[in-house]
Amino acid sequence: MRVLGIDPGLTRCGVGVVDGSVGRPLTMVDVGVIRTSASLPIAERLVTIERGLDAWIEEHRPDAVAVERVFARSDSSTIMGTAQASGIALVVAARRGLPIALHTPSEVKAAVSGNGRADKAQVGAMVVRILRLTELPKPADAADALALAITHVWRGGAQSRIDAAVAATRRPPTPMRTR
Amino acid sequence: MRVLGIDPGLTRCGVGVVDGSVGRPLTMVDVGVIRTSASLPIAERLVTIERGLDAWIEEHRPDAVAVERVFARSDSSTIMGTAQASGIALVVAARRGLPIALHTPSEVKAAVSGNGRADKAQVGAMVVRILRLTELPKPADAADALALAITHVWRGGAQSRIDAAVAATRRPPTPMRTR
Repeated sequence: MRVLGIDPGLTRCGVGVVDGSVGRPLTMVDVGVIRTSASLPIAERLVTIERGLDAWIEEHRPDAVAVERVFARSDSSTIMGTAQASGIALVVAARRGLPIALHTPSEVKAAVSGNGRADKAQVGAMVVRILRLTELPKPADAADALALAITHVWRGGAQSRIDAAVAATRRPPTPMRTR
Repeated sequence: MRVLGIDPGLTRCGVGVVDGSVGRPLTMVDVGVIRTSASLPIAERLVTIERGLDAWIEEHRPDAVAVERVFARSDSSTIMGTAQASGIALVVAARRGLPIALHTPSEVKAAVSGNGRADKAQVGAMVVRILRLTELPKPADAADALALAITHVWRGGAQSRIDAAVAATRRPPTPMRTR
Protein backbone atom coordinates (compact mmCIF):
# COMPACT_ATOMS: atom_id res chain seq x y z
CA MET A 1 0.00 0.00 0.00
CA ARG A 2 1.06 3.58 -0.62
CA VAL A 3 0.50 6.07 2.21
CA LEU A 4 0.74 9.85 2.19
CA GLY A 5 1.70 11.13 5.64
CA ILE A 6 0.79 14.74 6.42
CA ASP A 7 2.21 16.70 9.35
CA PRO A 8 -0.13 19.69 9.23
CA GLY A 9 1.20 23.21 9.75
CA LEU A 10 0.55 26.65 8.37
CA THR A 11 4.17 27.72 7.80
CA ARG A 12 5.49 24.26 6.95
CA CYS A 13 3.17 21.38 6.15
CA GLY A 14 5.23 18.17 5.99
CA VAL A 15 4.38 15.55 3.35
CA GLY A 16 5.90 12.12 2.89
CA VAL A 17 4.93 9.17 0.70
CA VAL A 18 5.84 5.61 1.70
CA ASP A 19 5.24 2.32 -0.11
CA GLY A 20 5.09 -0.96 1.75
CA SER A 21 3.19 -3.46 3.79
CA VAL A 22 3.48 -5.04 7.23
CA GLY A 23 6.42 -7.42 7.46
CA ARG A 24 8.14 -6.19 4.31
CA PRO A 25 10.72 -3.44 3.79
CA LEU A 26 9.23 0.04 3.36
CA THR A 27 10.32 2.46 0.64
CA MET A 28 10.29 6.23 0.61
CA VAL A 29 8.65 7.47 -2.60
CA ASP A 30 8.87 11.22 -2.01
CA VAL A 31 9.13 13.73 0.82
CA GLY A 32 8.86 17.49 1.15
CA VAL A 33 7.12 20.44 2.73
CA ILE A 34 4.47 22.84 1.53
CA ARG A 35 5.54 26.28 2.74
CA THR A 36 3.41 29.38 3.07
CA SER A 37 4.57 32.86 3.94
CA ALA A 38 3.52 34.33 7.28
CA SER A 39 3.09 37.68 5.50
CA LEU A 40 0.08 36.41 3.54
CA PRO A 41 -3.52 36.40 4.83
CA ILE A 42 -4.35 33.12 6.52
CA ALA A 43 -7.04 32.27 3.96
CA GLU A 44 -4.50 32.48 1.12
CA ARG A 45 -2.07 30.34 3.09
CA LEU A 46 -4.74 27.68 3.57
CA VAL A 47 -5.59 27.70 -0.14
CA THR A 48 -1.87 27.23 -0.92
CA ILE A 49 -1.82 24.21 1.40
CA GLU A 50 -5.00 22.86 -0.19
CA ARG A 51 -3.53 23.15 -3.70
CA GLY A 52 -0.20 21.73 -2.60
CA LEU A 53 -1.78 18.66 -0.97
CA ASP A 54 -4.02 18.15 -3.99
CA ALA A 55 -0.94 18.16 -6.22
CA TRP A 56 0.83 15.60 -4.00
CA ILE A 57 -2.17 13.28 -4.11
CA GLU A 58 -2.55 13.80 -7.84
CA GLU A 59 1.10 12.92 -8.44
CA HIS A 60 1.50 9.97 -6.06
CA ARG A 61 -2.00 8.46 -5.91
CA PRO A 62 -1.80 7.16 -2.34
CA ASP A 63 -4.11 4.38 -1.11
CA ALA A 64 -4.53 6.10 2.24
CA VAL A 65 -3.70 9.33 4.03
CA ALA A 66 -2.33 9.57 7.58
CA VAL A 67 -2.66 12.93 9.34
CA GLU A 68 -1.20 13.88 12.70
CA ARG A 69 -3.93 14.31 15.28
CA VAL A 70 -3.72 17.79 16.75
CA PHE A 71 -4.56 18.51 20.37
CA ALA A 72 -5.70 21.74 21.95
CA ARG A 73 -3.05 21.39 24.62
CA SER A 74 -0.14 21.42 22.16
CA ASP A 75 2.04 24.48 21.50
CA SER A 76 -0.58 27.18 21.86
CA SER A 77 0.99 29.96 19.76
CA THR A 78 0.60 28.04 16.51
CA ILE A 79 -2.15 25.59 17.42
CA MET A 80 -4.99 27.37 15.63
CA GLY A 81 -3.11 27.50 12.34
CA THR A 82 -2.12 23.86 12.75
CA ALA A 83 -5.74 22.90 13.41
CA GLN A 84 -6.91 24.82 10.36
CA ALA A 85 -4.24 23.20 8.18
CA SER A 86 -5.23 19.77 9.50
CA GLY A 87 -8.85 20.49 8.58
CA ILE A 88 -7.74 21.28 5.03
CA ALA A 89 -5.72 18.05 4.87
CA LEU A 90 -8.75 16.03 5.98
CA VAL A 91 -11.04 17.68 3.44
CA VAL A 92 -8.59 17.27 0.55
CA ALA A 93 -8.32 13.53 1.26
CA ALA A 94 -12.02 12.97 2.05
CA ARG A 95 -13.18 14.73 -1.12
CA ARG A 96 -11.34 12.05 -3.08
CA GLY A 97 -12.78 9.25 -0.98
CA LEU A 98 -9.37 8.25 0.36
CA PRO A 99 -9.24 6.35 3.67
CA ILE A 100 -7.95 8.69 6.37
CA ALA A 101 -6.40 7.86 9.71
CA LEU A 102 -5.36 10.21 12.48
CA HIS A 103 -2.36 9.21 14.56
CA THR A 104 -1.20 11.00 17.70
CA PRO A 105 2.45 11.99 18.12
CA SER A 106 2.77 9.31 20.84
CA GLU A 107 1.36 6.65 18.53
CA VAL A 108 3.86 7.65 15.86
CA LYS A 109 6.78 7.55 18.31
CA ALA A 110 5.68 4.19 19.64
CA ALA A 111 5.16 2.68 16.18
CA VAL A 112 8.45 3.90 14.75
CA SER A 113 10.77 3.62 17.75
CA GLY A 114 8.95 1.33 20.16
CA ASN A 115 8.78 4.14 22.72
CA GLY A 116 5.84 6.57 22.90
CA ARG A 117 8.08 9.10 24.63
CA ALA A 118 11.03 8.87 22.24
CA ASP A 119 12.72 12.18 21.37
CA LYS A 120 12.97 13.67 17.88
CA ALA A 121 16.47 12.29 17.34
CA GLN A 122 15.46 8.72 18.18
CA VAL A 123 12.43 8.88 15.89
CA GLY A 124 14.53 10.44 13.13
CA ALA A 125 17.17 7.74 13.41
CA MET A 126 14.50 5.05 13.13
CA VAL A 127 12.92 6.72 10.07
CA VAL A 128 16.34 6.67 8.37
CA ARG A 129 16.83 3.02 9.26
CA ILE A 130 13.29 1.83 8.39
CA LEU A 131 13.33 3.55 4.99
CA ARG A 132 17.03 2.71 4.40
CA LEU A 133 17.92 6.35 3.75
CA THR A 134 21.40 7.84 3.80
CA GLU A 135 20.27 10.83 5.86
CA LEU A 136 17.16 12.19 7.54
CA PRO A 137 15.10 14.49 5.28
CA LYS A 138 14.82 18.06 6.54
CA PRO A 139 13.04 20.03 7.87
CA ALA A 140 11.63 18.09 10.82
CA ASP A 141 8.10 18.42 9.40
CA ALA A 142 9.13 16.37 6.36
CA ALA A 143 10.67 13.65 8.54
CA ASP A 144 7.57 13.65 10.76
CA ALA A 145 5.36 13.12 7.71
CA LEU A 146 7.41 10.03 6.79
CA ALA A 147 7.08 8.74 10.37
CA LEU A 148 3.30 9.18 10.09
CA ALA A 149 3.21 7.24 6.83
CA ILE A 150 5.33 4.42 8.32
CA THR A 151 3.02 4.33 11.35
CA HIS A 152 0.03 4.06 9.10
CA VAL A 153 1.41 1.16 7.07
CA TRP A 154 2.17 -0.75 10.28
CA ARG A 155 -0.86 0.20 12.34
CA GLY A 156 -3.20 0.55 9.37
CA GLY A 157 -2.66 -3.01 8.26
CA ALA A 158 -3.53 -4.39 11.69
CA GLN A 159 -6.36 -1.90 12.16
CA SER A 160 -7.89 -2.80 8.79
CA ARG A 161 -7.97 -6.47 9.77
CA ILE A 162 -9.60 -5.61 13.12
CA ASP A 163 -12.15 -3.35 11.43
CA ALA A 164 -12.97 -6.06 8.89
CA ALA A 165 -13.42 -8.64 11.65
CA VAL A 166 -15.67 -6.29 13.66
CA ALA A 167 -17.69 -5.42 10.57
CA ALA A 168 -18.12 -9.14 9.84
CA THR A 169 -19.58 -9.84 13.30
CA ARG A 170 -21.95 -6.86 12.95
CA ARG A 171 -23.18 -7.82 9.50
CA PRO A 172 -26.82 -8.95 9.62
CA PRO A 173 -27.57 -12.41 8.12
CA THR A 174 -29.65 -10.86 5.32
CA PRO A 175 -29.22 -7.38 3.83
CA MET A 176 -31.33 -4.93 5.84
CA ARG A 177 -30.95 -2.09 3.39
CA THR A 178 -29.04 -1.44 0.22
CA ARG A 179 -27.33 1.82 1.21
CA MET B 1 -22.99 45.27 -0.19
CA ARG B 2 -24.00 41.71 0.58
CA VAL B 3 -22.13 39.92 3.36
CA LEU B 4 -22.14 36.25 4.31
CA GLY B 5 -21.40 35.87 8.02
CA ILE B 6 -20.06 32.50 9.13
CA ASP B 7 -19.93 31.34 12.75
CA PRO B 8 -17.71 28.28 12.32
CA GLY B 9 -18.50 25.07 14.16
CA LEU B 10 -18.31 21.36 13.49
CA THR B 11 -21.75 20.40 14.84
CA ARG B 12 -23.50 23.64 13.89
CA CYS B 13 -21.93 26.12 11.50
CA GLY B 14 -24.02 29.30 11.50
CA VAL B 15 -24.57 31.18 8.24
CA GLY B 16 -26.32 34.50 7.72
CA VAL B 17 -26.60 36.80 4.71
CA VAL B 18 -27.16 40.53 5.15
CA ASP B 19 -27.59 43.27 2.55
CA GLY B 20 -26.82 46.88 3.35
CA SER B 21 -24.35 49.68 3.71
CA VAL B 22 -23.19 52.03 6.45
CA GLY B 23 -25.87 54.55 7.41
CA ARG B 24 -28.72 52.72 5.73
CA PRO B 25 -31.09 50.05 7.05
CA LEU B 26 -29.76 46.50 6.80
CA THR B 27 -31.81 43.60 5.49
CA MET B 28 -31.59 39.92 6.32
CA VAL B 29 -31.48 37.88 3.10
CA ASP B 30 -31.21 34.40 4.58
CA VAL B 31 -30.06 32.62 7.71
CA GLY B 32 -29.46 29.04 8.78
CA VAL B 33 -27.04 26.45 10.04
CA ILE B 34 -25.06 23.69 8.39
CA ARG B 35 -25.30 20.69 10.70
CA THR B 36 -23.07 17.64 10.78
CA SER B 37 -23.54 14.52 12.85
CA ALA B 38 -21.05 13.81 15.62
CA SER B 39 -21.26 10.13 14.67
CA LEU B 40 -19.50 10.75 11.35
CA PRO B 41 -15.72 10.86 10.88
CA ILE B 42 -14.39 14.39 11.21
CA ALA B 43 -13.16 14.47 7.61
CA GLU B 44 -16.67 13.76 6.31
CA ARG B 45 -18.10 16.42 8.59
CA LEU B 46 -15.64 18.97 7.23
CA VAL B 47 -16.52 18.03 3.64
CA THR B 48 -20.21 18.52 4.49
CA ILE B 49 -19.39 22.00 5.81
CA GLU B 50 -17.33 22.76 2.72
CA ARG B 51 -20.18 21.74 0.40
CA GLY B 52 -22.74 23.57 2.50
CA LEU B 53 -20.78 26.83 2.49
CA ASP B 54 -20.12 26.51 -1.23
CA ALA B 55 -23.87 26.14 -1.79
CA TRP B 56 -24.63 29.24 0.32
CA ILE B 57 -22.11 31.32 -1.65
CA GLU B 58 -23.41 29.92 -4.92
CA GLU B 59 -26.98 30.84 -4.03
CA HIS B 60 -26.45 34.27 -2.48
CA ARG B 61 -23.32 35.56 -4.25
CA PRO B 62 -22.00 37.67 -1.35
CA ASP B 63 -19.54 40.54 -1.97
CA ALA B 64 -17.60 39.62 1.15
CA VAL B 65 -17.39 36.95 3.83
CA ALA B 66 -17.04 37.62 7.56
CA VAL B 67 -15.78 34.75 9.73
CA GLU B 68 -15.54 34.67 13.50
CA ARG B 69 -11.95 34.71 14.63
CA VAL B 70 -11.29 31.67 16.82
CA PHE B 71 -8.90 31.76 19.76
CA ALA B 72 -7.02 28.93 21.38
CA ARG B 73 -8.27 30.05 24.79
CA SER B 74 -11.96 29.57 23.94
CA ASP B 75 -14.01 26.58 25.04
CA SER B 76 -11.35 23.88 24.79
CA SER B 77 -13.53 20.78 24.32
CA THR B 78 -14.72 21.89 20.88
CA ILE B 79 -11.98 24.32 19.91
CA MET B 80 -10.13 22.03 17.51
CA GLY B 81 -13.25 21.25 15.50
CA THR B 82 -14.15 24.94 15.46
CA ALA B 83 -10.67 25.84 14.22
CA GLN B 84 -10.86 23.20 11.50
CA ALA B 85 -14.31 24.41 10.42
CA SER B 86 -13.02 28.01 10.32
CA GLY B 87 -10.15 26.88 8.10
CA ILE B 88 -12.66 25.35 5.69
CA ALA B 89 -14.72 28.57 5.69
CA LEU B 90 -11.62 30.63 4.85
CA VAL B 91 -10.60 28.30 2.02
CA VAL B 92 -14.08 28.17 0.50
CA ALA B 93 -14.22 31.98 0.36
CA ALA B 94 -10.58 32.51 -0.71
CA ARG B 95 -10.85 30.00 -3.56
CA ARG B 96 -13.52 32.24 -5.07
CA GLY B 97 -11.45 35.38 -4.54
CA LEU B 98 -13.97 36.84 -2.10
CA PRO B 99 -12.74 39.46 0.38
CA ILE B 100 -12.58 37.88 3.84
CA ALA B 101 -12.55 39.53 7.22
CA LEU B 102 -12.12 37.96 10.62
CA HIS B 103 -13.94 39.58 13.54
CA THR B 104 -13.50 38.62 17.17
CA PRO B 105 -16.54 37.96 19.38
CA SER B 106 -15.76 41.21 21.25
CA GLU B 107 -15.68 43.19 18.03
CA VAL B 108 -19.03 41.73 17.03
CA LYS B 109 -20.57 42.54 20.42
CA ALA B 110 -19.18 46.06 20.33
CA ALA B 111 -20.33 46.70 16.75
CA VAL B 112 -23.84 45.35 17.24
CA SER B 113 -24.63 46.45 20.80
CA GLY B 114 -22.06 49.14 21.56
CA ASN B 115 -20.62 46.98 24.36
CA GLY B 116 -17.77 44.52 23.78
CA ARG B 117 -18.88 42.56 26.85
CA ALA B 118 -22.57 42.40 26.03
CA ASP B 119 -24.28 39.08 26.77
CA LYS B 120 -25.96 36.81 24.19
CA ALA B 121 -29.43 38.22 24.95
CA GLN B 122 -28.34 41.83 24.40
CA VAL B 123 -26.62 41.00 21.12
CA GLY B 124 -29.62 38.96 20.01
CA ALA B 125 -32.04 41.79 20.81
CA MET B 126 -29.91 44.20 18.76
CA VAL B 127 -29.75 41.77 15.80
CA VAL B 128 -33.56 41.63 15.82
CA ARG B 129 -33.81 45.43 15.96
CA ILE B 130 -31.09 46.16 13.36
CA LEU B 131 -32.53 43.71 10.84
CA ARG B 132 -36.15 44.58 11.76
CA LEU B 133 -37.04 40.94 12.45
CA THR B 134 -40.04 39.70 14.38
CA GLU B 135 -37.95 37.20 16.35
CA LEU B 136 -34.35 36.11 16.73
CA PRO B 137 -33.40 33.24 14.40
CA LYS B 138 -32.40 30.05 16.18
CA PRO B 139 -30.12 28.35 17.02
CA ALA B 140 -27.65 30.84 18.51
CA ASP B 141 -25.08 29.99 15.79
CA ALA B 142 -27.46 31.34 13.14
CA ALA B 143 -28.02 34.58 15.07
CA ASP B 144 -24.26 34.91 15.63
CA ALA B 145 -23.66 34.60 11.90
CA LEU B 146 -26.07 37.51 11.29
CA ALA B 147 -24.28 39.57 13.95
CA LEU B 148 -21.00 38.88 12.15
CA ALA B 149 -22.46 40.00 8.83
CA ILE B 150 -23.84 43.20 10.40
CA THR B 151 -20.44 43.86 11.99
CA HIS B 152 -18.78 43.45 8.65
CA VAL B 153 -21.08 45.86 6.84
CA TRP B 154 -20.46 48.50 9.50
CA ARG B 155 -16.75 47.89 10.17
CA GLY B 156 -15.92 46.70 6.68
CA GLY B 157 -17.02 49.93 5.07
CA ALA B 158 -14.79 52.02 7.34
CA GLN B 159 -11.93 49.54 7.10
CA SER B 160 -12.10 49.51 3.31
CA ARG B 161 -11.77 53.30 3.26
CA ILE B 162 -8.79 53.14 5.65
CA ASP B 163 -7.15 50.37 3.59
CA ALA B 164 -7.66 52.38 0.40
CA ALA B 165 -6.13 55.50 2.00
CA VAL B 166 -3.15 53.54 3.31
CA ALA B 167 -2.66 51.86 -0.05
CA ALA B 168 -2.75 55.27 -1.75
CA THR B 169 0.03 56.66 0.47
CA ARG B 170 2.15 53.57 -0.19
CA ARG B 171 1.68 53.64 -3.93
CA PRO B 172 4.94 54.59 -5.69
CA PRO B 173 4.75 57.57 -8.11
CA THR B 174 5.48 55.30 -11.08
CA PRO B 175 4.65 51.61 -11.37
CA MET B 176 7.59 49.58 -10.07
CA ARG B 177 6.33 46.27 -11.37
CA THR B 178 3.28 45.01 -13.14
CA ARG B 179 2.34 42.14 -10.79
